[in-house]
Amino acid sequence: MKVSIIGVTGYSGLELLRYLKQHPFVEVSSIHSHSVNKKTLEEIIPHLKQLISLPLEKIDPDDIMRKSELVFLATPSGISKEIAIPFIEADFPVIDLSGDFRLKEVGEYNTWYGADAASIESIQKFDYGLAEYREKPQAKWIANPGCYATAAELSLAPLLKENRLILDSIVIDAKSGVSGAGKGLSQTTHFSETHDNMSLYKMNRHQHIPEIVQQLKKWAPALSAIQFSTSLIPVTRGIFLTAYAKLKEPISDEKLVQIYQTHFEKKPFIRIQEVGHYPVLKQVIGSNYCDIGLAYNPKMNMITIVTVIDNLGKGAAGQAIQNLNIYAGFDEQCGLELLPIYP
Amino acid sequence: MKVSIIGVTGYSGLELLRYLKQHPFVEVSSIHSHSVNKKTLEEIIPHLKQLISLPLEKIDPDDIMRKSELVFLATPSGISKEIAIPFIEADFPVIDLSGDFRLKEVGEYNTWYGADAASIESIQKFDYGLAEYREKPQAKWIANPGCYATAAELSLAPLLKENRLILDSIVIDAKSGVSGAGKGLSQTTHFSETHDNMSLYKMNRHQHIPEIVQQLKKWAPALSAIQFSTSLIPVTRGIFLTAYAKLKEPISDEKLVQIYQTHFEKKPFIRIQEVGHYPVLKQVIGSNYCDIGLAYNPKMNMITIVTVIDNLGKGAAGQAIQNLNIYAGFDEQCGLELLPIYP
Amino acid sequence: MKVSIIGVTGYSGLELLRYLKQHPFVEVSSIHSHSVNKKTLEEIIPHLKQLISLPLEKIDPDDIMRKSELVFLATPSGISKEIAIPFIEADFPVIDLSGDFRLKEVGEYNTWYGADAASIESIQKFDYGLAEYREKPQAKWIANPGCYATAAELSLAPLLKENRLILDSIVIDAKSGVSGAGKGLSQTTHFSETHDNMSLYKMNRHQHIPEIVQQLKKWAPALSAIQFSTSLIPVTRGIFLTAYAKLKEPISDEKLVQIYQTHFEKKPFIRIQEVGHYPVLKQVIGSNYCDIGLAYNPKMNMITIVTVIDNLGKGAAGQAIQNLNIYAGFDEQCGLELLPIYP
Amino acid sequence: MKVSIIGVTGYSGLELLRYLKQHPFVEVSSIHSHSVNKKTLEEIIPHLKQLISLPLEKIDPDDIMRKSELVFLATPSGISKEIAIPFIEADFPVIDLSGDFRLKEVGEYNTWYGADAASIESIQKFDYGLAEYREKPQAKWIANPGCYATAAELSLAPLLKENRLILDSIVIDAKSGVSGAGKGLSQTTHFSETHDNMSLYKMNRHQHIPEIVQQLKKWAPALSAIQFSTSLIPVTRGIFLTAYAKLKEPISDEKLVQIYQTHFEKKPFIRIQEVGHYPVLKQVIGSNYCDIGLAYNPKMNMITIVTVIDNLGKGAAGQAIQNLNIYAGFDEQCGLELLPIYP
Repeated sequence: MKVSIIGVTGYSGLELLRYLKQHPFVEVSSIHSHSVNKKTLEEIIPHLKQLISLPLEKIDPDDIMRKSELVFLATPSGISKEIAIPFIEADFPVIDLSGDFRLKEVGEYNTWYGADAASIESIQKFDYGLAEYREKPQAKWIANPGCYATAAELSLAPLLKENRLILDSIVIDAKSGVSGAGKGLSQTTHFSETHDNMSLYKMNRHQHIPEIVQQLKKWAPALSAIQFSTSLIPVTRGIFLTAYAKLKEPISDEKLVQIYQTHFEKKPFIRIQEVGHYPVLKQVIGSNYCDIGLAYNPKMNMITIVTVIDNLGKGAAGQAIQNLNIYAGFDEQCGLELLPIYP
Repeated sequence: MKVSIIGVTGYSGLELLRYLKQHPFVEVSSIHSHSVNKKTLEEIIPHLKQLISLPLEKIDPDDIMRKSELVFLATPSGISKEIAIPFIEADFPVIDLSGDFRLKEVGEYNTWYGADAASIESIQKFDYGLAEYREKPQAKWIANPGCYATAAELSLAPLLKENRLILDSIVIDAKSGVSGAGKGLSQTTHFSETHDNMSLYKMNRHQHIPEIVQQLKKWAPALSAIQFSTSLIPVTRGIFLTAYAKLKEPISDEKLVQIYQTHFEKKPFIRIQEVGHYPVLKQVIGSNYCDIGLAYNPKMNMITIVTVIDNLGKGAAGQAIQNLNIYAGFDEQCGLELLPIYP
Repeated sequence: MKVSIIGVTGYSGLELLRYLKQHPFVEVSSIHSHSVNKKTLEEIIPHLKQLISLPLEKIDPDDIMRKSELVFLATPSGISKEIAIPFIEADFPVIDLSGDFRLKEVGEYNTWYGADAASIESIQKFDYGLAEYREKPQAKWIANPGCYATAAELSLAPLLKENRLILDSIVIDAKSGVSGAGKGLSQTTHFSETHDNMSLYKMNRHQHIPEIVQQLKKWAPALSAIQFSTSLIPVTRGIFLTAYAKLKEPISDEKLVQIYQTHFEKKPFIRIQEVGHYPVLKQVIGSNYCDIGLAYNPKMNMITIVTVIDNLGKGAAGQAIQNLNIYAGFDEQCGLELLPIYP
Repeated sequence: MKVSIIGVTGYSGLELLRYLKQHPFVEVSSIHSHSVNKKTLEEIIPHLKQLISLPLEKIDPDDIMRKSELVFLATPSGISKEIAIPFIEADFPVIDLSGDFRLKEVGEYNTWYGADAASIESIQKFDYGLAEYREKPQAKWIANPGCYATAAELSLAPLLKENRLILDSIVIDAKSGVSGAGKGLSQTTHFSETHDNMSLYKMNRHQHIPEIVQQLKKWAPALSAIQFSTSLIPVTRGIFLTAYAKLKEPISDEKLVQIYQTHFEKKPFIRIQEVGHYPVLKQVIGSNYCDIGLAYNPKMNMITIVTVIDNLGKGAAGQAIQNLNIYAGFDEQCGLELLPIYP
């Protein structure tokens, strides 16, 4: 199968390349950038020197559709919605890593992204690509979830689906590595300001909030809001998410872990930690794994869920490839069998 | 005023030295270690080369009491309770930075520290040294609070005292720099394991939990438990604490900030951020400041409190000196007027 | 081909596992530890959860030789020389990652490692495994080079072989990430001491010095010594090596780069940077690449060589697999085609 | 004594504020920015909240000269040369932290800074502010040295003055923390690119090279060039400089250390490490100290000098205040007696 990547010079685009290099059934047939005007990738991306022979091309949809069978859009929110149009019109498969096709409710995109949404028709064509819970696995158009959203949704799915949580008690304290902010320069990502530092940003207004609520509602329609915070930690990659919620009935640690183990039994990328064990961020870096640890606090009748993913892996490129595998009918793990890099 | 420091080679002990070097009314007359067998500090602490002329001495309580008017115990929990005995018996002032004299309820120390507590009589002599809320400011014996406890208690004090919180809804997600674990070697503090990583530790069993609950109960006697997590972030210094709680009545961001500003108006080390602003960890490093930012989320009727301190400053040595100032009748800011170090 | 790994719980052992997972022709048939007493790897190595089904075994040479065709010793210097004996005696292939079989001259090991060397007979059986310059590619016993040594030797080979350097002018300033010190706990690898810090260690007495000199002498017999320093930088992985030397005759940047490009033309893991470009450390992390940049300073008639490798890749496990490929007659790049991880 | 600071929002400007807060004889009477358009510092510099009551003003030379007795220019190279003019013309004292008044030879500034120099007349008015070797201590105009230059010059002074070095053998491999690049945004200072990374930049063309050579020539007129490299390490603050040079005659470690100890005997900020000890970067951070360790390698007849400074301390603001003290006749250590911050 032949694919193209638009937005290949960004961190998610580069990570798509890294995974696809290992994919037994997929070949990258062209790479594109909407912002960089160079002839080859290695001029600006030294770690790829001598490793990628493809030229870096402008975006010509017709040409891409001739060369490939599917296109990844690793472009930022706001850009994807424009770039996607000719592909959708031509009935050509797209996996979009931006936020442009995720929010189904009219007005939500505008509220949270501060810009006009893509057309309703195009948005409705996209299936939300939370790989373990795909609604239309054969969809030609996939809106790959946000990194925070992936971690948050996987953390809460089993308990929401079993109706065990007091819905207005959910608090999620999520922390992200700096690569989540992309390559763009800002004071927030300046080394001297970020190193040895931590900060909370977009208080109560992170654009992944409506995406998470939209998905959680599918499992618990009575849910109306969550408390969700996003902080920046001085690591390059990774989401470390801690979720708290009150239970309707008391439970034990053992039962809690067992619910998750059973729920995710056939999901190879979700690894539930044993009772009393909690994942560290590094144990998933460079991979598509999502590791989850669980604890019950009887004094508060509250659970704590610790979830880690690589924001560029399960939080972006890894899940996008998992979605490609689902679409194409490959084994879900194809191209994603790299061990995490440790230490 | 002359003081001695026991445990001077640990991170808190060294930080006491750093602040006291600036103190206009205090002179360090002797320094001691219970574990290091060297003649001078600079043999093991290169940054102090040529700066500390005092010899590094064994612990001889009689000698210390002859030379000094007060002793700081910058020794670990479990050690302080032994070292303190002769000083208490001799009616000699002690500021202890360990957890050995903080928990007033019989059995609590044993439950959370896994060892026998100091004698009830000695524990009751100690005033809990949360400097902004001292009960017996003239006490000769001061149990300096834990770093997490300081941040947690200062975060919640105004709203608990005003009875605005739903008490069983408090969730605290606290993150600490690695110096909080001290100088002791462990896999958890090994660079290759900790760098670019994050982990949650002591799930539901951190020894600061009972200390915090004990203090919060003074302000809200009906409170029985909190949800409290501690994570390790890859920075050297600092506590970044995010607290969440439901309110009895809705509020606005403006009102929330105003409550805190009014409450801490006369407290020079507590700096309340303006509406819409949240402190970053680095803005207090090297200082005794505790900076607090606040937000209200109407969808959840929940507040978020972001609080930062230097774990070795307001969380240890800084507050210990603030307590010394209170005890000795000096201005509270003496010796603590260093600007934070930034970047 | 079936192989066993002894010392699998160390950083180099784990990296062997990571690469071999991708190797098309090699299967790991058993894994062993000389120090850890657990039944499975995932009990102590969380990132491998569910990924390695092999049990963690004691070291039984007979059993290993039954199961495998070659054994990797990823054990520390001092340990390998004992563990290797039964394999050598049984004429069974060994790739040793320690320093125990590298120094050919009697007495050198004792001088630099401070312990007795392996027997002369055993040492002489080992071929020095600098993969681009193997002397006996078919050797059954391979002494894989040190990480610093690999970077230093590859940096200087072309100019020494062409007899262009003033031999007593070579200065190498090498910096290493902390994983080079292994998993062992020490103050030097304690996060709070190492983070935001840099230090020079083993001044003029690093054990890679005699190894480098031994190899350089093969190319320039008149060489008798080099200036070689090793510093620790606050990164997890990587060697960043800067070498300086005076030239016998002036040269241009262009000519210099061309000499290296020609010299390494057929060596896929050595990537010579273009004129005016110098590698950054991160561009090789997670891979077996060795990237080299070059500059000539006419005012000093001196060259600067900037060389980067991943100390666990080309500096250990990566090169060990490259040596396995050479021994077994596989393509040199088998199992080593992972892209570097970036950022 | 009253002083003003222009460029107070940059890292050096902020560090001037931090030190001057402690200075017993100096008061900051006004603060200015050439680029920021805010009314107070704390709007953009959160760590100074409630600590600096001065307004942030535009640059009005007449007003500054009315309010103050001396002005610090903590402005970048290229800006200082313009801002300084009215002060010089008015015979008003200036300490400039930029490179604009350091290079005395016509044409050098243009060659290395790629821009027109200040007027020859103005440059000649400035004394080069290497505090331990001031030529005109009473000068009203002081060109504070560069951070690298300070470390390099102090490293070599004793041996050059004693004529012990082979002059064309000097190799300096200097590493800098990222704050040395200032607050400006660039890919080089982007966290995701810099963290866990190291890079060599400005190969053979760093603008501190001519400054160093100019100063070294004063001590060794026959010297014509040095080999000087600058690398970026992932720490916020600090210069870690390793210098190598051949000696005319062999020496011992003991003699070497003794030469330095004697030479710097009366220089409180230069701390020579004992034989066999080498400074770590962190031991000077937050201070004006310059720590030097020394070793002799008889096999190469070469010395290694390891020198550490805080680039914002002895490399900028600290030394600027030391120069102020010299100018004003205060004790050299006034305001600079803060202990380094450790860990």
